[in-house]
Amino acid sequence: MVRDCIFCRIGSGDAPGVLLYRNEHCFAVADIEPKAPVHLLVIPNQHFTYLGSLAPSFYTVLGEMFAAARTLAETHGIAGSGYRLVVNQGENAGQQVSHLHLHLLGGRPLDAMG
Amino acid sequence: MVRDCIFCRIGSGDAPGVLLYRNEHCFAVADIEPKAPVHLLVIPNQHFTYLGSLAPSFYTVLGEMFAAARTLAETHGIAGSGYRLVVNQGENAGQQVSHLHLHLLGGRPLDAMG
Repeated sequence: MVRDCIFCRIGSGDAPGVLLYRNEHCFAVADIEPKAPVHLLVIPNQHFTYLGSLAPSFYTVLGEMFAAARTLAETHGIAGSGYRLVVNQGENAGQQVSHLHLHLLGGRPLDAMG
Repeated sequence: MVRDCIFCRIGSGDAPGVLLYRNEHCFAVADIEPKAPVHLLVIPNQHFTYLGSLAPSFYTVLGEMFAAARTLAETHGIAGSGYRLVVNQGENAGQQVSHLHLHLLGGRPLDAMG
């Protein structure tokens, strides 16, 4: 846990946040500035900043994050109509919190990827 | 291999394509309609259509796809400036080829995610 990281604080219960999903690897919250009718964030419990530190030991966490996103797409009724998963890394991508997270977007036809 | 799948055909050498990366799990090509100065596709060798069929046995492939994307971001000089990784699933996301693939975009400040 990184004390000044908002995602670490939400995940640990130190900061308020409605968890839409939780398992031993990751949790999910709604994006506070949604860019689509459904816009959720899947966040690993452990603090990873960048994929630069990606090691095979992280593959399970990443897989569980995608599995959580798929489950959330189903429970939010967008699995059939389609959805987009996005990981932003660094400044050009507009990464706003330096704790790795997976965006899940859907609920309307999506525009360009970037 | 799915015979009428363009990604299966490129991956197997049945269709032309410049492979920018290849390992036992995945390969990479340039997107033929690039949306950013760097726009590559990381594609699993095995034909997966949707994440709906995601099982723990796929986690290694997914992890290797992300590791390949990170390596490609480094070799294309965008690891420092930042990059975006995108998986589109289904119609609302604009998925154009029904063989799972990971978009790697960078080389300029990116716009909205969708």
